[in-house]
Amino acid sequence: METQSQRGNGSAALRLRRLDIDTYREFVVFMNRDCEVCRSEGFEVRSRISVRMNGRHIVATLNTVGDDLLSVHEVSLSEAAWKALGAQIGQSVELSHPVPLASDSYLRKKVYGGGLEPSEIDLIIREVTDGRYDDIHLAAFVTACAGDRLDAAETVSLTAAMTGAGQRLSWPAEKVADKHCIGGLPGNRTSMIVVPIIAAAGLVIPKTSSRAITSPAGTADVMETLTRVDLDIAAMRRVVEREGGCIVWGGAMQLSPADDILISVERPLDFDSEGQLVASVLSKKIAAGSTHVVLDIPVGPTAKLRTMEAASRLEARFRHVASAFGLELRIVQTDGSQPVGRGIGPSLEARDVLEVLQNRSGASAQLASRGVALSARLLELMGACPEGAGIARARSLLATGAAWRKFQAICEAQGGMREPKVADHRAEILAERPGRVTAIDNRRLAKVAKLAGAPHDPLAGVDFHAALGTPVERGQPLYTVHAQTRGELGYALSFARAHGDIIGITQT
Amino acid sequence: METQSQRGNGSAALRLRRLDIDTYREFVVFMNRDCEVCRSEGFEVRSRISVRMNGRHIVATLNTVGDDLLSVHEVSLSEAAWKALGAQIGQSVELSHPVPLASDSYLRKKVYGGGLEPSEIDLIIREVTDGRYDDIHLAAFVTACAGDRLDAAETVSLTAAMTGAGQRLSWPAEKVADKHCIGGLPGNRTSMIVVPIIAAAGLVIPKTSSRAITSPAGTADVMETLTRVDLDIAAMRRVVEREGGCIVWGGAMQLSPADDILISVERPLDFDSEGQLVASVLSKKIAAGSTHVVLDIPVGPTAKLRTMEAASRLEARFRHVASAFGLELRIVQTDGSQPVGRGIGPSLEARDVLEVLQNRSGASAQLASRGVALSARLLELMGACPEGAGIARARSLLATGAAWRKFQAICEAQGGMREPKVADHRAEILAERPGRVTAIDNRRLAKVAKLAGAPHDPLAGVDFHAALGTPVERGQPLYTVHAQTRGELGYALSFARAHGDIIGITQT
Repeated sequence: METQSQRGNGSAALRLRRLDIDTYREFVVFMNRDCEVCRSEGFEVRSRISVRMNGRHIVATLNTVGDDLLSVHEVSLSEAAWKALGAQIGQSVELSHPVPLASDSYLRKKVYGGGLEPSEIDLIIREVTDGRYDDIHLAAFVTACAGDRLDAAETVSLTAAMTGAGQRLSWPAEKVADKHCIGGLPGNRTSMIVVPIIAAAGLVIPKTSSRAITSPAGTADVMETLTRVDLDIAAMRRVVEREGGCIVWGGAMQLSPADDILISVERPLDFDSEGQLVASVLSKKIAAGSTHVVLDIPVGPTAKLRTMEAASRLEARFRHVASAFGLELRIVQTDGSQPVGRGIGPSLEARDVLEVLQNRSGASAQLASRGVALSARLLELMGACPEGAGIARARSLLATGAAWRKFQAICEAQGGMREPKVADHRAEILAERPGRVTAIDNRRLAKVAKLAGAPHDPLAGVDFHAALGTPVERGQPLYTVHAQTRGELGYALSFARAHGDIIGITQT
Repeated sequence: METQSQRGNGSAALRLRRLDIDTYREFVVFMNRDCEVCRSEGFEVRSRISVRMNGRHIVATLNTVGDDLLSVHEVSLSEAAWKALGAQIGQSVELSHPVPLASDSYLRKKVYGGGLEPSEIDLIIREVTDGRYDDIHLAAFVTACAGDRLDAAETVSLTAAMTGAGQRLSWPAEKVADKHCIGGLPGNRTSMIVVPIIAAAGLVIPKTSSRAITSPAGTADVMETLTRVDLDIAAMRRVVEREGGCIVWGGAMQLSPADDILISVERPLDFDSEGQLVASVLSKKIAAGSTHVVLDIPVGPTAKLRTMEAASRLEARFRHVASAFGLELRIVQTDGSQPVGRGIGPSLEARDVLEVLQNRSGASAQLASRGVALSARLLELMGACPEGAGIARARSLLATGAAWRKFQAICEAQGGMREPKVADHRAEILAERPGRVTAIDNRRLAKVAKLAGAPHDPLAGVDFHAALGTPVERGQPLYTVHAQTRGELGYALSFARAHGDIIGITQT
C-alpha cells in the first residue's frame, strides 16, 4: 500500500523492454493499455508523460499496445527517446505527469499577435530545446512566427536564445571564416572548394555541415566518401589547429539544437518565415564561433528566393541581426536556375569537387567559378586581400594546387583520405529525339538519384550530361543512373522511364 | 522485373500484420526499416504514405521497426488506421507516395494573414475530413485562425464547410430543438433534464452528446449508466419518432467530422479561437438538423468565459453565423463558479439527474433550476409558451412527473432502462478543521474522480458534500471517493491526502 501511495503521488515505475520503433525525432512511450500505472495515473493514449531514468528526463507522448508487445509490467520507448535517456533493457523507468509548459502563455501571446520580450523568447527556446514542445506546439510556434510576425528585435532575441541554448565553440583566432548557402541547389558543393582555398590563404575556417535530409546528398555525406566527418569537438579543434580548416558533420555538436527541432516541423509545413530563417542560420554560425560569414543566396524561378526583391528584403534582415552580434556578413546572390556540376549523390558529387580542386580539364567550370566567387568575397571580407582582388587571389590558390594540397591535408587530419569509387550498376537514359535541352526537372532528377539509393548508398546517384542549352542527338545519353543493387537500379530506371520529360528537349 | 517496374511507378504491396498499437486518432504505418519497399520508394521515417486497401484510402505517417516486430515482407497500421481501412490480418496493402495537399496554398495564405474564400475553406475542410492533414498541418491551420484571424464571413464559410463534410440529419418537424453548453462544468448534466422536459411539452429534441475526453464524465457516459446510447441514425430516428426526444452518443454519426479532428489538436494547444468555436458548435447543430438552439455559456473566474465582455463578443459572433443559416439561437449566461449537483463520475451524476426528475427531497436544487431555466428559454424560443411563461411551464412539466415519465419512456425506447448502482469501495475525506468552505479546486477534484476510475468504471467518482459556503465541523465528510477496485481507491485517496487543500476551509 505504501508503494501505491507513492505512485498515487505522481510517480510510477515499470521495466524497460526494447521494441525498436523509430519515430524519427519524436519521443513516444509505449505501455500496455491495461497496465495499472496508466489507470492509476490517469494516463490516456496521447497523454504527455514525464519519463525519468539515469538522472535524465524527457517528456514523451503515450501510445498504448496490447499483450503481444508488452506485459502490464513493461514499458518501451521510441528509439529517439531510448537514446536521449541512455536507456538499457530491463532498467526501471519513473513515469509521472509532467509539469505544464512554463512558456505556454508566451506561445499563446504570440499566437494572438503580441510581441515577445527577450526573456519570453528565451524560455520558449529553452523548453523547445529540452524536448518539452510536442509537434503540435512546435507547429503552433512556427505558424505564429510565420510571415512577418517576428519583428527585427524579436529576430535578434530568437537568434540569441537559439545560440544560448546549445554548445558554443571558440577559436584562438581573431577572425573566423564561414560560409552558408540558403536553399541548396543539387550538386552545389562549394564548401569543399571554399574551405581549402580559405585555409590555404592562412585563414581559419572551421566548417560544420549537415547530412541530407530530403535531398540525395548533404555536404557531410559528400565529404564522408573521402574521409571521416563524425568528429567530436576536441578532434575538430585538433584538425583546425593543424590545418586552419575542416569540413565535419555538425549534427552531433549541439550547435543551436533548437534549430534542428524547429526545422523538423518547418520542413513538412514548408513555410518561409524570414525571422526564423535568419535566426536559424545566424544562431548556428555564432554558436560555431564564426566572425566573418559569406552567405550564398541562389535566386531563380524554382529556387527558395524567386525575385531580387525577396532576396533584398531577406538580406536587410540578415544584416540587421548580424550587426547586433558583431558578425561581419557578406551576401552573394547566385544563379539558382539549374544544378551545379554534374554528379547528384555523395560519391559523384565528391568526384566533381576533386576534379575542380585538381584542375582537371573536364572539371565543371560552373562549380569552380562559384567556389572561386564565394572564396573571393570571404578573402575580401576577412581583409586577406584588397576589395576587388579576391577573385584573382582565390583563382590563384586553386590553380597553383595550393587548395588541393590543403584539401588533402585536411582529409588526412580528419582521419585519412579515401578514393571515391564508382557504383557496380549503371544505366544510361537516352534522348528520344534530337533537339536542345530547354528544361530540367530538378526535383524529379533528385528523386531518380534517391530511388537509386542516394544518400544511404554513397555510390548511388545520377551523373548528368545535359545542362541547359546542350544540343543533343537522338540516342545520346542525357544522364547515367548509378546504383549498388540491380533492384534499386530497376526502380530508378522505371521511374525515369515513366517520367520521360525530366530533361525537356525542344526540337530545333 | 515487371513487378519491380510497377512498384517503381508509385505503388508497392506488403502483407498486413496486427501490432495493436493505439496512437489515438493518428494514422501510422509501420514497416521494417530494411524493407525493399521503403528503400525503393524512398520512404523515410515520418514520410507521409498513401495506404490503399478494400477500396478505401488513407494517408499515414511512417514509423520504422526492426525484425522483432515485422519482417521485411510485412506492414502494420495503428489501430485508428486499421479501423479506417477495415483491415484484416494477412491482407495485402498498396503503398505509394500521396498526392500533395491540394489546399496547401490556402493554408499558407491564411498563415500569412490573407483572407480565405468559401471554396478555399471548403477544400481545406474536405482534406482535413479525409485525414489528409497530419497533426503539424492541423496545428498550423488552428494557429493561423486563432485570435481574431477568422472574420465573420470566414466563420460562416467554415461552418458551412464543416457541416457539408459530414452526415446531415433531417426530421419530419418544422421546429427541432437543441441545447449546448460551452465549456463544461463538472456535474452540469442539464441535457438529461432539458430533453425530457422539452419532449414532454410535445416538441422534438433529438440530442446527440459526447463522451468524456479529459473530464470524469460526458453526458453520453452518464446516460449510458441508465440505457444504451450507441444508437445508429436509424435507431435514433425511431426513438425520436416515438418519444419526440433522445439522448444518444453523437460520436459514431459523422456529424461535422472535421470538428472532432480539429478539436484533437485544439485541446492540447488550449487556444480559444472565436471563429473556430462558433463553427464547431453550430456546424454540429446544423448537421443534427436543429432549428432552435439554446446555448449555455457559464461565466466565472475559472470558466472558459471569464468576463461578461468576452461572453458578449462571443455571443455576437454566434448570432451572426446562426442567422446566416436561419438558425434560431438564444444564449443564456450562467454561473460558472462551482460544480453543479453533487456527483462527479457517470453513475453518481446519473443519480443526481434521477433525483431531480423524480422530485426527491434531497435533489440538487441548483441542477434542477439550471435545467428548468434552459428548458424555459427553449420553450419560449420554440413558441411553445409566451415569453416570460417558460419558467412556470418547465417547472410544471418537472413537478408533475411528466418529465420523469418521458425520461423513462426515452430510456425504454433506446433499449431499456437500468438502475444506477453504487461502487463496492468507498472512503470519505474528512475536514481537518472546523470552518466554512471558501474554495473548491475543481480541477483536482475531477482528478480524484479520474484516479478512482471514472469514466471507464462508471460507478467510480466523487460524491461531493461541501458546496461553497457550507459550514463544517472537524471530522465532517467533505466528499466520498467511490471506486470499483481497492487499488484505484488507494490511488485516489493518496492523491486526495497529498492535496489537503482541494476543499479550502476558512476558520470562522
